Order: sequence, then C-alpha cells, then structure tokens
Amino acid sequence: MSGNSFGKLFSVSTFGESHGVAIGCVIDGCPPGLPLSEADIQPELDRRKPGTSRHVTQRQEPDRVEILSGVYQGVTTGTPIALLIRNEDQRSKDYGNIAESFRPGHADYTYWHKYGVRDPRGGGRSSARLTAPIVGAAAIAKKWLLQQYGTVFKGCMSQLGEIGIPFESYEHVPNNPFFAATADAALIARMESYMDDLRRDGDSIGARIDVIAQNVPVGLGQPIYDKLDADIAYAMMGINAVKGVEIGAGFQSVSQRGSEHGDELTPQGFVGNNAGGVLGGISTGQDITVSIAIKPTSSIRTPRRSIDKDGNPVMVETFGRHDPCVGIRATPIAEAMLALVLMDHALMHRAQCGDVQVATPDIARAK
Amino acid sequence: MSGNSFGKLFSVSTFGESHGVAIGCVIDGCPPGLPLSEADIQPELDRRKPGTSRHVTQRQEPDRVEILSGVYQGVTTGTPIALLIRNEDQRSKDYGNIAESFRPGHADYTYWHKYGVRDPRGGGRSSARLTAPIVGAAAIAKKWLLQQYGTVFKGCMSQLGEIGIPFESYEHVPNNPFFAATADAALIARMESYMDDLRRDGDSIGARIDVIAQNVPVGLGQPIYDKLDADIAYAMMGINAVKGVEIGAGFQSVSQRGSEHGDELTPQGFVGNNAGGVLGGISTGQDITVSIAIKPTSSIRTPRRSIDKDGNPVMVETFGRHDPCVGIRATPIAEAMLALVLMDHALMHRAQCGDVQVATPDIARAK
Amino acid sequence: MSGNSFGKLFSVSTFGESHGVAIGCVIDGCPPGLPLSEADIQPELDRRKPGTSRHVTQRQEPDRVEILSGVYQGVTTGTPIALLIRNEDQRSKDYGNIAESFRPGHADYTYWHKYGVRDPRGGGRSSARLTAPIVGAAAIAKKWLLQQYGTVFKGCMSQLGEIGIPFESYEHVPNNPFFAATADAALIARMESYMDDLRRDGDSIGARIDVIAQNVPVGLGQPIYDKLDADIAYAMMGINAVKGVEIGAGFQSVSQRGSEHGDELTPQGFVGNNAGGVLGGISTGQDITVSIAIKPTSSIRTPRRSIDKDGNPVMVETFGRHDPCVGIRATPIAEAMLALVLMDHALMHRAQCGDVQVATPDIARAK
Amino acid sequence: MSGNSFGKLFSVSTFGESHGVAIGCVIDGCPPGLPLSEADIQPELDRRKPGTSRHVTQRQEPDRVEILSGVYQGVTTGTPIALLIRNEDQRSKDYGNIAESFRPGHADYTYWHKYGVRDPRGGGRSSARLTAPIVGAAAIAKKWLLQQYGTVFKGCMSQLGEIGIPFESYEHVPNNPFFAATADAALIARMESYMDDLRRDGDSIGARIDVIAQNVPVGLGQPIYDKLDADIAYAMMGINAVKGVEIGAGFQSVSQRGSEHGDELTPQGFVGNNAGGVLGGISTGQDITVSIAIKPTSSIRTPRRSIDKDGNPVMVETFGRHDPCVGIRATPIAEAMLALVLMDHALMHRAQCGDVQVATPDIARAK
Repeated sequence: MSGNSFGKLFSVSTFGESHGVAIGCVIDGCPPGLPLSEADIQPELDRRKPGTSRHVTQRQEPDRVEILSGVYQGVTTGTPIALLIRNEDQRSKDYGNIAESFRPGHADYTYWHKYGVRDPRGGGRSSARLTAPIVGAAAIAKKWLLQQYGTVFKGCMSQLGEIGIPFESYEHVPNNPFFAATADAALIARMESYMDDLRRDGDSIGARIDVIAQNVPVGLGQPIYDKLDADIAYAMMGINAVKGVEIGAGFQSVSQRGSEHGDELTPQGFVGNNAGGVLGGISTGQDITVSIAIKPTSSIRTPRRSIDKDGNPVMVETFGRHDPCVGIRATPIAEAMLALVLMDHALMHRAQCGDVQVATPDIARAK
Repeated sequence: MSGNSFGKLFSVSTFGESHGVAIGCVIDGCPPGLPLSEADIQPELDRRKPGTSRHVTQRQEPDRVEILSGVYQGVTTGTPIALLIRNEDQRSKDYGNIAESFRPGHADYTYWHKYGVRDPRGGGRSSARLTAPIVGAAAIAKKWLLQQYGTVFKGCMSQLGEIGIPFESYEHVPNNPFFAATADAALIARMESYMDDLRRDGDSIGARIDVIAQNVPVGLGQPIYDKLDADIAYAMMGINAVKGVEIGAGFQSVSQRGSEHGDELTPQGFVGNNAGGVLGGISTGQDITVSIAIKPTSSIRTPRRSIDKDGNPVMVETFGRHDPCVGIRATPIAEAMLALVLMDHALMHRAQCGDVQVATPDIARAK
Repeated sequence: MSGNSFGKLFSVSTFGESHGVAIGCVIDGCPPGLPLSEADIQPELDRRKPGTSRHVTQRQEPDRVEILSGVYQGVTTGTPIALLIRNEDQRSKDYGNIAESFRPGHADYTYWHKYGVRDPRGGGRSSARLTAPIVGAAAIAKKWLLQQYGTVFKGCMSQLGEIGIPFESYEHVPNNPFFAATADAALIARMESYMDDLRRDGDSIGARIDVIAQNVPVGLGQPIYDKLDADIAYAMMGINAVKGVEIGAGFQSVSQRGSEHGDELTPQGFVGNNAGGVLGGISTGQDITVSIAIKPTSSIRTPRRSIDKDGNPVMVETFGRHDPCVGIRATPIAEAMLALVLMDHALMHRAQCGDVQVATPDIARAK
Repeated sequence: MSGNSFGKLFSVSTFGESHGVAIGCVIDGCPPGLPLSEADIQPELDRRKPGTSRHVTQRQEPDRVEILSGVYQGVTTGTPIALLIRNEDQRSKDYGNIAESFRPGHADYTYWHKYGVRDPRGGGRSSARLTAPIVGAAAIAKKWLLQQYGTVFKGCMSQLGEIGIPFESYEHVPNNPFFAATADAALIARMESYMDDLRRDGDSIGARIDVIAQNVPVGLGQPIYDKLDADIAYAMMGINAVKGVEIGAGFQSVSQRGSEHGDELTPQGFVGNNAGGVLGGISTGQDITVSIAIKPTSSIRTPRRSIDKDGNPVMVETFGRHDPCVGIRATPIAEAMLALVLMDHALMHRAQCGDVQVATPDIARAK
C-alpha cells in the first residue's frame, strides 16, 4: 500500500538498493502446487542481467537468485515466496562525486526533496537494478500462466533512436544484443556502430519496445479503474525511464475513423486487433499488444548544468558504468510487468467469476 | 479492491450504469474542514455533460449532483462524501437491437464473456457516462489542492483526427466546442465542418488531449510501482477509449539523446521539462504534462460485421445518441483523473513524510 | 482504504450520518448471476430496525432500501451494487444541547479532537444507525453463501446484564424482543421488567451476543494476519459498543489444558469445537462460533460529569430516543459482520486455490 | 493483500517457515530520517526468543537480525526495510512422524485442506516462530512512536492457567521467566512448579496477557470498520493461539450499567478508563488497554485421537521441542502487534488530518 508492492492478489513486495547488501522480493498469493525451483527463475534473470554485451553496463552481477520460503519438496505451498539476490559488484566510489549535486534527468533531486535523505550509491532505490526482483517474480507468474492457459510472453525492440527495426519474427530476438526481432545482419551491424559512436561521444539514446501476450484468457480485467489496460499502463510506466505507453493502435487511434479502428468479428474470430486485446478494460482473448517509449539514459559523461544541495550552480559529469541505452535490457522487464498484470487479473477474475475461459481465436495474430 | 474504487487515501468508489436509476460515488478520505457544497461540484459536471453542442451526444442530462453525506454546516467532516446523480433521459429502446450481438470495438463482447450477463442499455457500466461521478469527486480534490498548494489543472484538445491544433493559450478553451486552446476562428470552423461531415457519414474520429497540473508540490509519488507517473498512466488509460499515454516528451524520447532529454537545472529552476514534471516517479515541482490518445467512438451508424451470442455472423449498425468524437468531452475528464492522482499522492506523501513542500520554479512553464 | 470500506474482494463502502439525508453503501465484487431484489434485503433490515418493541429506541425508521445499480433483469451483473436508505425520522433538536460538550462514553470527544469538526446530530457517523447498510450488504452475501455452500448464520443474546440466558434453540429467537434462544416465558418476563426498571432509572445495560455460521467450507482464511478469526475479531470489534470478542472457547482457554482444549478428530469428524471452527486462521468446516461483549448505551438520562469544548466542567444529561440496551438489536448486526467476513474469504480462497471444498462433519454442532 | 502483509501505510510483509532457510519481512512506509541499526531491533527479538528458561521450548535460535535495505548511513531512507533472520537450529526429523496425520488443535488439518500441500516441519508457516519478524518490525515502529509522541508499550502475564497474577508494577516483568508484573517470590515459585508439573505430565496450559500503550496521541483510528479497537482486535486475534480479545472493561461491560461504564470527564482528564483508551473507534489519548486469552499449546506428549490424510483413525503424540505454555513468550508479541497498529494509524491520521495532537491526561493511568 505504501508503493513498493505490485499487484493485489499476486502481490510482489520488493526491497533493496543498487549498492546495498542485497535486493529481493516477497511474493504473496502464489497458488499452491506449482512445481518451482531456482532453475525456473534464473534464466529470466540472466536475460536482463548486466555485462552481457559491450552495449550495456559492464557491471558484473551474476544475479544469482535464492528462494528463501514458500516452496516445499519442489512445489509452492501457497505461502509467501521470498527471493534474495545478493549485490556483489558494488563500486560505490564511482558515485561519491555526485552525492552532493543532482544529475539532470535523475531521481537525485526528487528523492532529496521528498525524503530529506538519499542513498546516492548507484542511484540507490531508483536504479534499474531493482527490476531484477520483479523479473524473478514474473518468472513464477509466467510458469503458472503457461501451465493454466498456455499464455506466453514475447517482446522485442522496435526502434533504437532514429533507427526503426522492422519486425520479422520473435525467434530472432535471442540472436542479437538488442532484442531485435530481425535477422538482418546489416541492420544489426548498423545498430552496433550506432551504439559505439554514442559511447564514444559519452551520450545515450532512447528506444521503443513492443511486448505481447498470447493465448490470453478472455474476461480478465475490471470494468472501471482496474481495467486490464489501465493496470498495464501503470505497470509499464512504472519501469525506469519509460515515458509513454500504447495499447493496440495507441496514438494512431487519434487519426483513425471508427469504421477503421473498431475490430470486426466473424465466427472465426476478430479480424483485426486495433484494440490490442482489450475492450472496455477486459481482455478479448486476442493478443495483448503493448508498446513503450524509453528515454535515453540520464547518466552520461557529457558535462551538464545542475545545482548542488545548497542551490549553487555546478557542472555534472557522470562516470561509472551505465547502459548507454537502458532500452536494450528493457524487453525482458516489460514482458515481466505484463506477466505480473495478467497473473494478478487472472486471480482477481477467478475470485469473482470462477475459473476463466479459454482464449478466443485471433485471425490477426503476430507470429 | 475489486476494481471500482480509485485511489488509496482519497478513495472514490463509483456505482451505476448508463441507463440505471442513478450513478454516483462514495469519496472516502477527504480531509475535514474543507468548505464544500454542490455549487463547488456542479460547474465541473457541466463542463463534461452531454448535449452542449451539436458535435456531442444529444442525450439531455442535467447531471444534477446531490451531496448525501460527509458535509455538515458547509464543511467536510472527514467522513465519507456520497455524491448522487439521477439518470433522467434514458431511451433504452435505442439499444434493444444490440442486446443479442456484439458491437465491434465495444465492451459488449468482453462483458458477456466475463460475467455471462450484461446490461446492454447504453453500454451499461462501460458507458462514458460513468466518468461523471469521477469528475464530481475530482472537483473536491481540485478545491483542496488549490487551497493547500495553489495547484491548478488545465487541459485542451491538441489534435482532432488529422487536424493538429496549435497551442495558443488555455484561456481560449471555454470559447469553442472542442476545448481547443486557440482563438483561430478559421481552424475552429474547419473542425466544425469536419465533424459535420463525419456525422453525415455515420462515422467517428479520434483525438489527442493534453492536460497539465501547475503549482505541484515537489516530492509526490512513491519510488517504485506507485510512481506518480505510473499512477497517472493508470488513471488516463482507465478513461473510456484511451489507447495511449505520454508523460513529458513521451514517445519523442525514443529518438532523443541523453544530452538533449535530461532537463538541466540552474539556481533559477529547471531549464526544460522533457520529464513532464516527474523524475524517478516523484514530482519535481514543475508542471505535470500529460498527453493521451483517444480512439474514435465505436458506436457508429456504418454497418459492420460481427457475431451474435451464438457465434452466428450478423451486421451491426448502432443508432441511438452518440458522441461522434468522444475526445471532445474528454478534456475535463482527463483533468479530473490527474487531480485525483495528485490528491491521493499528496495524502500519501503527508502520511510518510509530513507536510509537503512548495513548488519549484519551472523556467519552461506553459502559459 | 481510508477506513470506511469493509472487505477486500467483496468490498462494502458505506456512507451517511444518523441525521443526514441518507445512508447507504456501494458493494464491489459481488459475483454475477445472483438473483437479487430489494425483497432479499428488506427482511434483514427489518430485523435490526428501531421501534420494534418498547425496549429499543422509539425512532420510527422504515429503513426502506433501494437498489440503485448492479442488478439487471433481476440478477447481479458483477458491477457495483449501490444501496440507498433515506433517513426519515430525524429530530435533530433532541441533540442541540450536546453539540458543545462531550457525552461520557461517546465518540463526541474523539471526533472533535480528530477532525476539529463533528456532526452532533444523533451521533453523526458514529451512530449505530450506520449498521443498517452493512446489514443490507450482508443480506446479499448470505444469499450467495447459502446458494454456494448451504452456509447459514444464526445468533442470539446469551446474557442481558446480570441475567444469563440458557441456550435452548435458535427457533425461539424470533419469538421474543431480545433475540433470546429460549422459550422460557418467565425468563423473558424477567428481562422485560428488568429493562422497564432501567428505562425508569434513566440508565442502560450491557449484553453478550453469540453468533455462529454453519455449513462453512473448509479452507477459508489466510495463514498470517488475515486469518479468518483475526478478520472476525476485526469485524466484531468494529460493531458499535463492542468491547470483547471470543472465538470458540475464548477466555475459557486460559484455564484449559492442552489435553482438554485441542479438539480430537475421528473418521466421523471433530469431537469438540473449542477451536470455534478455526485452526491456524483457517476454517475447519465446523461451526464458526463467536461471542461478543456489548457495553451499556452511553446515552442515558442520568446526569454525568463532563467538559465542554473549552475544557470547562459541565453536567450532561442525554435526552432523545436511545436503546437502553444496544445489545438487543446487535444480533442481526453480528450475523451480518460474520457473513461479510466469510464472503470475503470465500472469494479470496477461490482466487488463490480455486473452488472451495464442502463442509466437514462436526459431531459437536449447535442445533 | 493476500494475507501475509500487516498494515496499510506502515506495511509489514513477512515470509518464511519454522524450518525453512530463513524468516524475515519487508517493511514498507517507514518515515525517513529515523536513526536505525540492528542494535535497535535485536533486544526486542531477544525478549521473545526461545530457550531463555526451562519453561519454554529448548530450541536454540539466536534470532540474529540483519537489515538488508532501507537504511543508509545509520538513518532510514523512506524506502523498504528488509529484515532477515536465518534459521539455525532445525531438527526436522522431530516432525517426520506427524507429516501424514493431523495433530488435534493444530493447523495441520486446515492447511492440508486449503492448499493440498503443507510443510510439516515445525508447523511450517503456522509456527509461532513467524512472530519474530513482526517483533523486529515493531521495534522500528516503537522507536518512531517514542520519538514522535513519547508513546511506550508495556505488557505482562495476568493469569497462568488457574493462577491469577495480581498487578504490582511493570518494573518487575523482566525479573521472572513469566513476564509477571509482580515481585511476589512465592507466587513465582508456585508458577515454576506448576509448569514443571505440566511438563512432567506431557500437557500444556493457557494464559492471559495484558498490554497497554501509554502517551498515545488523541485522534488515531477511522470511524467505521478500520476503528483503532477493531484493528487491535484483528492484530491480537492474529497472534498464534489467541482465542479472545478485550479492550478496556471487555466482557465486564456486559453486566455494567451505563452510569458505571461511561468514563466521566473533568478539566483534569478522564476519571476512568473502561473505554480502554478508545471511543467510537478513535483514541482518546488515555492508555490503550488490551487483554488477550491464549489457548494451551496443542503440541503435547499426551496421546490423542486423530485421523490421517486418508481419514483413518490414528493416535498422535507430539514429541520435539515445544512451549508448554505459548502464553509465556506472548507478551512481547502482543506489545509488538499493538505498536504496529498504532504506527499504522498514526500515519493514516497524518495523511487525512495532518500532524496528530499530544496525549490527553488520564487520571486513572496504570503505573
């Protein structure tokens, strides 16, 4: 209730700071009887962990997860599941120089004014590192949703700065460092040199990420306020550096006519998906399609104007190890948030309406 | 908790359907001692009510609000405030013909599959009419926020279908039927004929709405999950027909560099507002700037393919009284949602950190 | 979340004051498809309404309930159900004399210090009149629980002041003005004269109420904090004037040995019910047995010492119409609270664990 | 929200099982700027830890607490505080023999039916061991409440089985193994031999515990449902083995007259405290006085009738290490729960009404 818990019935309460002792979370509400071990969670954490290519932060963190509770003899017991990840590669000295001033585009300024105290080491609580526990929790949700409904989650980067990335197939995503759904080697090479130039310039860039959920039960979502799409927007905008969220046709809807936007229905299913799988805040059973805008990393080497705690003008340069494009590692995080929202709504729906229905055919499904 | 309440500490629980007996809400958590009467609420309801121009639904609803509780001798007592609005102009016969089939782009299909029963009269619970109680509740939040911090809320339509609407000044908003922040008579005339053509064609169109909050205290928002911008995204995406939400630079952030996006600070304040007034999920004290995409109305006269409850193909034409552009009346609704989010976070902040601070100068403020 | 809502998944938000325009509630989370009309709710309200005998307040309130939403063609739709009860017999002049001072044993003092403002008419929000909406909401929960699991709720007064009331059978409860489970005419007559003496003396008295739920599914309750018995204690202590709550053996457990208290199990079921139907916070499927202590009415004609708002000593006599024993009307209220707790936990259990199980045999069941 | 979190604004989410890897909690909502280290928490944990006398379980657990987050340079940052306690003295073989059958009076039966799976080691999640994290979290609440308002918490055992323990002074509590507020050596000796006899008989006994909070601000509590006393009842009944809760006069209220029960007021303060410091669900500023009934330990060596998972009759004897009177260690736990309730309500009150007021004089205060 105080902000650091996600979800109502599959509730994830996280803790930790970038350079503290450890990070982790407590997952409350997981259904009993789900086979679960660290081996189900670690692969998801590995997808988002740092140091996997030269285009992301070089911080070396194994992000090894430990299950502390809620699992007995290999299955969930229905009691809280605690996940613990020890921080191992802290270099707090890297941050000493910005403890007294506010980095432009960072949470330094707001934390200081809100709390009157802040942990400047690696951005403290505001670090993207805190997405690790949520990815771990989502691995459990993904497993349950797959087992119950066959629901799967996929995502890719569709734009890197000015570079658009045409969608070919999700199968290509693991084969390049950008989570790009393309096999176009020339395009990947262009993105690599683009990133190399940025790092050389001490600058950063934004990105657009698309995620979808497939085989979603129909009927998930509450009609008003806790709409499925409203909770998805909440979840996505809550990811570090996200500045925009679209469902289905998103901002294209502005210039569409009703006769174009409204997805027609046939006995075989919906013939389009401008709705993005949600109508009136409730899932249609089609693919849930979401797109998010991620701002460029605020921590850059380029000197920038700012002020210190006393309001005096200062120039700030941020050294240390940063992702020149936080969007690169955002794909598994966005998938995770989407999974947590669907998990919570699946349980909420089951509470009020009993067991949920199977998915509805979607003629216009992404491959 | 079951979806129909908005807010945690300034909590608004709404009820009602488009053609039921009445609609309304219970507001729990309003601070005591606020002078309040129906006269504070009615003007906000009048801004969104139907029938104010030929470009919106012709349903005639006075939307007269009655305060049932929580106010004694003209001031709030700290106990729940109930607002009641009787429905007066129901014409359910208009909807009989769609009770057995699903209108493309509508919640008919999802409600039916979720609940196994639905109220088809005017869209029942999914009708935009249900934004009236929230606008009423927000009028109370706006009054308290203005009194406490001087916070004000403004909004306008910035795009109608393909027609962009350059921003001049909010003072022009009340002077045209589109909530456009312009005095350009030729542009307004063009929009009028554009809407007339749409109605003649039995079609509808989308719109983009911008809203801002000014004089916002610094420090509102919880660092993770219940971020101020996450809750704003949740609130905005929860408005009927919204398909996209942007904070600050929004999707423009994708192609921005860090050296461009991150708003620099000087002793006089921030020199830009790409952040939209939120950093790390917490308000900076700058203007909160939000932009939303609203899809075209799904209820159109143009015949469309669909299916009935038994899965048989049918053609659907929607008669009755509808807004050919639901975006036209969305501006006061978006302002209301933004006000409710800030109100809730103001109380949440006060709980954890005590009284909030005054706003921070914003050199790049909208006029 | 701000205190005036009861329940998480079957959530009841109430509003209103004793002498305001109206009282009522919004029920969020009711499963769809339940046949429902005012005729299902009114009888429960009639059981608790005032003026039914000379031993309760003579205020004449029909407590006629109106369903404003959430029901279509005679069945619940799954959307919020709003109940409205207009106040009809207000005599606020009766209370003018205590607006400036604090009645001993009343909420006057605490409301004033908490809010800095209070509605003194009939106790405002702190009036027992506010139990009417909760009884109305519980009528819906009772109907659903009966239909789903055959669960029934019964209650009786087991002590009136010094007078113990031996339990014979619940069938006698409707046949006397005290909700006593006895057919002992001499005992009833003694209670009548006891109450007549109290009224003559301008004094009041306490009471003990017992309530049970039968045919309760096994498995309801969360292991820690939101235990079934913890939520029952919360619900019961929340009833006006309640000062003590017992589950099962209650305070007798203090002097029991483990070999006596722990209910043994046989293939035929439990052989005792010291547990009161709850073990480890989870229902056993036995009868849930609860007992509560209700303090004497604070509003009495006997002059008492107090202070006014400025701290000056005053003598307070309370005229107006009051129950000389608030316990008399407490039985249906306690049943209602128990029903709401079980309803909420039934939905919570269904969310996490799927459909609940049938009841377990209870050899030692109350008749 | 799924049951394992306590509190709304000072929210404590616990995890762990008696014989798992570790137990702990995440505390969300702690105000920033509070000086805090393990040294503030460990003493409270030491008061409740096992093995401190021959009258409690001989399990040897240092219950060493580690703060994993939320504290930087010795002060709280306003972000979540995670507490971790490793389990060290597990002897799961002690419990193997009861894995297939249900111990009378235990949660074995209900967990099995609720979840279809349970961790039988030491009672798993239902073990009183899980009160350790809550005691740790409450140590933080106690420190904040003391610093803000001077609030202090005290408790003692007032009855052990049939043995009543007259109250002398709280200063005697640390000087005997029973948390008895007496210096009567003969009485202590009698209690010691009473317990020795019970252990010899392989039986157990119940107890009554009294706790109070002093220097409580006036105005804490929400008028309906989330009343201060309702939340206290919820918190107390949630403690393992508690079967009854009283506030103030408790069950004595049943036979009291209004002219006796209602606490009169003078310019010097209240002249009595039958209310137990709560009127209309809101604190009066007097001492909050609470009494709880604790049932005898269910785990005893005396053979008892039960059934196995297949419903076959079995005899159950529980060996292993158990408290022959769980009430002995309950005093610090009850204090902790009371502190958490007051902390949560202090923040809730601050949210709605701003900073709270100082305590009101209480002429009839316990020493």
